[in-house]
Amino acid sequence: MSTGDWKQIAKAKKESVDKLIPKEWRLPDDIKSKYNETTPVSVIGLHKTFGILNDKEVEITEAYTANELLKHIADKKFTSLEVATAFCKRAAISTQLTNCCTELLFQEALARAKWLDEYLEENGKTVGPLHGLPISVKDAMNIKGFDSTIGYVSFIGNKKDIKEDAALVKILLELGAVIHVKTNIPTTMMSADSENNIFGRTLNPLNLTLTAGGSSGGEASLIKQRGSLVGIGTDIGGSARIPSLCCGVYGFRTSNFRYPQEGKVLKSRNNYSSPVSAIVGPMAYDFENLNQMMDLVLNYPKASKYDPDLIAIPWNNNLSLPKKIRVGVILECGSVPLNPPMERIIRDAVDKLSKSPLIEIVNLTDFPSFQYGWELLHGYFTSDPKSEIITNLTKSGEKMIKSLIFLVEANNSFKTPKAFEDFYELGEARYQVKRHWLKIINDMSLDIILCPGASHTAPKHDTFGNCPYTGMWNLVDFPSLIIPFGKVDKDIDLDDPSIKYCEGTLQTYDKDVHHGSPGHIQLVYRTLQDENVLKVGEIIDRVLNKS
Amino acid sequence: MSTGDWKQIAKAKKESVDKLIPKEWRLPDDIKSKYNETTPVSVIGLHKTFGILNDKEVEITEAYTANELLKHIADKKFTSLEVATAFCKRAAISTQLTNCCTELLFQEALARAKWLDEYLEENGKTVGPLHGLPISVKDAMNIKGFDSTIGYVSFIGNKKDIKEDAALVKILLELGAVIHVKTNIPTTMMSADSENNIFGRTLNPLNLTLTAGGSSGGEASLIKQRGSLVGIGTDIGGSARIPSLCCGVYGFRTSNFRYPQEGKVLKSRNNYSSPVSAIVGPMAYDFENLNQMMDLVLNYPKASKYDPDLIAIPWNNNLSLPKKIRVGVILECGSVPLNPPMERIIRDAVDKLSKSPLIEIVNLTDFPSFQYGWELLHGYFTSDPKSEIITNLTKSGEKMIKSLIFLVEANNSFKTPKAFEDFYELGEARYQVKRHWLKIINDMSLDIILCPGASHTAPKHDTFGNCPYTGMWNLVDFPSLIIPFGKVDKDIDLDDPSIKYCEGTLQTYDKDVHHGSPGHIQLVYRTLQDENVLKVGEIIDRVLNKS
Repeated sequence: MSTGDWKQIAKAKKESVDKLIPKEWRLPDDIKSKYNETTPVSVIGLHKTFGILNDKEVEITEAYTANELLKHIADKKFTSLEVATAFCKRAAISTQLTNCCTELLFQEALARAKWLDEYLEENGKTVGPLHGLPISVKDAMNIKGFDSTIGYVSFIGNKKDIKEDAALVKILLELGAVIHVKTNIPTTMMSADSENNIFGRTLNPLNLTLTAGGSSGGEASLIKQRGSLVGIGTDIGGSARIPSLCCGVYGFRTSNFRYPQEGKVLKSRNNYSSPVSAIVGPMAYDFENLNQMMDLVLNYPKASKYDPDLIAIPWNNNLSLPKKIRVGVILECGSVPLNPPMERIIRDAVDKLSKSPLIEIVNLTDFPSFQYGWELLHGYFTSDPKSEIITNLTKSGEKMIKSLIFLVEANNSFKTPKAFEDFYELGEARYQVKRHWLKIINDMSLDIILCPGASHTAPKHDTFGNCPYTGMWNLVDFPSLIIPFGKVDKDIDLDDPSIKYCEGTLQTYDKDVHHGSPGHIQLVYRTLQDENVLKVGEIIDRVLNKS
Repeated sequence: MSTGDWKQIAKAKKESVDKLIPKEWRLPDDIKSKYNETTPVSVIGLHKTFGILNDKEVEITEAYTANELLKHIADKKFTSLEVATAFCKRAAISTQLTNCCTELLFQEALARAKWLDEYLEENGKTVGPLHGLPISVKDAMNIKGFDSTIGYVSFIGNKKDIKEDAALVKILLELGAVIHVKTNIPTTMMSADSENNIFGRTLNPLNLTLTAGGSSGGEASLIKQRGSLVGIGTDIGGSARIPSLCCGVYGFRTSNFRYPQEGKVLKSRNNYSSPVSAIVGPMAYDFENLNQMMDLVLNYPKASKYDPDLIAIPWNNNLSLPKKIRVGVILECGSVPLNPPMERIIRDAVDKLSKSPLIEIVNLTDFPSFQYGWELLHGYFTSDPKSEIITNLTKSGEKMIKSLIFLVEANNSFKTPKAFEDFYELGEARYQVKRHWLKIINDMSLDIILCPGASHTAPKHDTFGNCPYTGMWNLVDFPSLIIPFGKVDKDIDLDDPSIKYCEGTLQTYDKDVHHGSPGHIQLVYRTLQDENVLKVGEIIDRVLNKS
């Protein structure tokens, strides 16, 4: 393939997808040209202004939580078709503004919604607890009849090899959901900037000059725009949590093999021998849907049939917590300094929590270095004697995206395991880090760890770089959750030219650029205690965001 | 160290342990000399004939299950001291007959029993649900004040480095148990013949010319002699299950990290990077104690504190089973032929089960080759660039035991991973085998798999060799259980000179030698579904052995 070839193939693919947006849902060119990655504006609030959504569709997409919508479909206030139409339209607008979608399943979603309505009418009951809820899924999840390119030009047309839906897609459909779009990612899914040579770059809807994060960037961008209220991401170094914290939505990294991942494209052979695994996890506009997505999916009888690798332990809804929850707090790791707003936001969160009678704060000072954790994680990322990533890129001849080139260069001083012995040493080092965390949890009798998910809020495009605050938990396989909290405030969070950021990032802080960007906290607990993270998370979210 | 040195050191160690048997518990030399590895007799029934156990002690050690004893201690029919004394004496006799113990904790056990009695008297309640029950543990489990040599001469004296009890030992003691002995193993714990240069060879109490199995051979031999009714083994290729099937007791291989293993000596660094792990699991005279040992330990609040690596999922006592249990049966794998009695015994078991209204038999024909599984497992065993085993042996200069030399030679055609790439290929191959098993369970809607645990009953010393029927489940990390069932019968199970055994074994079948040896079945299910194995196992044990 020559250079020209891959560009033409990518362009043709993108055009074929764009055509799936009905004419009456398209934004005029003059509007579209106003919104691009150099426009420092938020698009939140614009969707209803283009005359594409009618009043009822604005109401459907803006006035309700996902669970309220489910209730209203079940009691026939809205039809599934009305709800699906509203969210398909809104997703179409969202992707025209922020490039958040890859494959568009509008026709299929509307046909399915019609069938769901007929089913409800005929049977007097819903298909299942997700009856009629539009759910978006990351491009990596296979859906029969659609490509799973994950941005590789060489993967265009791979729908011919996709014989069945991913396990999770099957389950969601059988529970009654409607899947209306697949969402954008960076090529390789190994960068925090969701850009690729097919679909282009996903923008942050709160400020188009900032990254939406990655690799589940399209998912977070779409959810923030309410083009979907519940979505599916994946996470091997922060890919579900980074976009969540960049766009201000909820994102959950489940424990390895705790959530169905069968039928995710490109199951890396590394995973067969590596403790670091690209997990699948829910992302949502509202906290409550995370637990719901764990509960419904893991307690679905066929879950372990559809995904044989699943650790087939039911989701435990009856976890009991102590009266006072002991929260171990990491305000900052010296090796990965926070920028001014994130430093303040984490402190604000801890202050607020410390005033709750439900919570006891334990400050942690001696813990593993997050920068060191990143180095080890990077060792696993690059433990690939066959270089699958390079192979997939060179098949088409496409160029590597800018953020990936930076990552490769930024980390080239790290040791890449070459020999068997290196891999064992890496394993021992990882184990010692994991043990240290477990010792902290034990010695301090912690019920949760609270820490930053990044040293910053959404940075400018292609400046995110490394992600040690999320990557640590992939290294040790701890379930971890992003909760949005607070915002950058230019009047409080002043520029600080003296701050030294960690290696491997290009991000800078400029109070005028970042003003209004969402802050966040991250909650973490030990392997396979996913229930604990969400149960404690619910309480902490209530204290932080609902009181 | 010269050759003479290691022999003297080993001899001194053995003598120092032997001295811990009180004079009045010692067998006369003329009796001891009658029972050795060339004597084709059973010692079951002899223990009460030496005048060491008084009538009450015979009653205590022979007339009750472990749970009945616990009840009788709690309601003061027996004191803890009486029970501990009886089992210490019986263990002393057992080890003089079969060499089943390493460290003898008689003094400590009696002192503790006295304290337990005082506690019960003063507080009117027991210390915990295991109050006063003598439990034996494999030599590998650390106990403060005692060596954990696991047979290495170079490990003699390592008690100086053992600062605390193993996690499981702590838990058992806090639950009220009394630990009275540590039990014998093969050097390295990688052979099915429990022989080492310090403590010698453990004999099978049912026929001293047969192996007790390994590596938890001392444990199974002791339990069969009722020198202990509940014990702790470990298992990386069958080490808890092989001795169980050789001696006719129950043994359970738990899922990786499902049972506390912290404080097991020689945590191999391989385990940090390998999916094959030396797990810890219970062994018992009666089935009911397996579930009890899982339940009490995993629902003990401090379990995950004492073992940070533990997958801290409580033991689920409320598992519901279908009305009819679908048992997938593997009568034999073509690559590992069964000898005449085991072939008959497995068929007998299936026949008996098929008549139960609770059970539906599904014959499995297409499944992964057990010989191939063994080859892959062997790849993990030898994935050790630093050769820890050889290092530990050469430190003292001791010679390798015969059964290990055979194993090394028998498997020297197998590929040993040298390069990183080999290790990845091994990981992929393992994954495909695991997927095949999961597909079988799914496609056939199985509730359990039933298969042999070995192609034979206890063979002669140093002829066991490879163990593909147990090793398969270590490879794929499936919990698996040995249930004793049936016996070799020389009138039915005739010699068959035409049978071809698998590679890697020296075992032969001789109806006169093996007459009366216990048969067995093995039950298996998917990773972390340990509860399912024991719950189904309970029903199957009842049908096979109690009806």
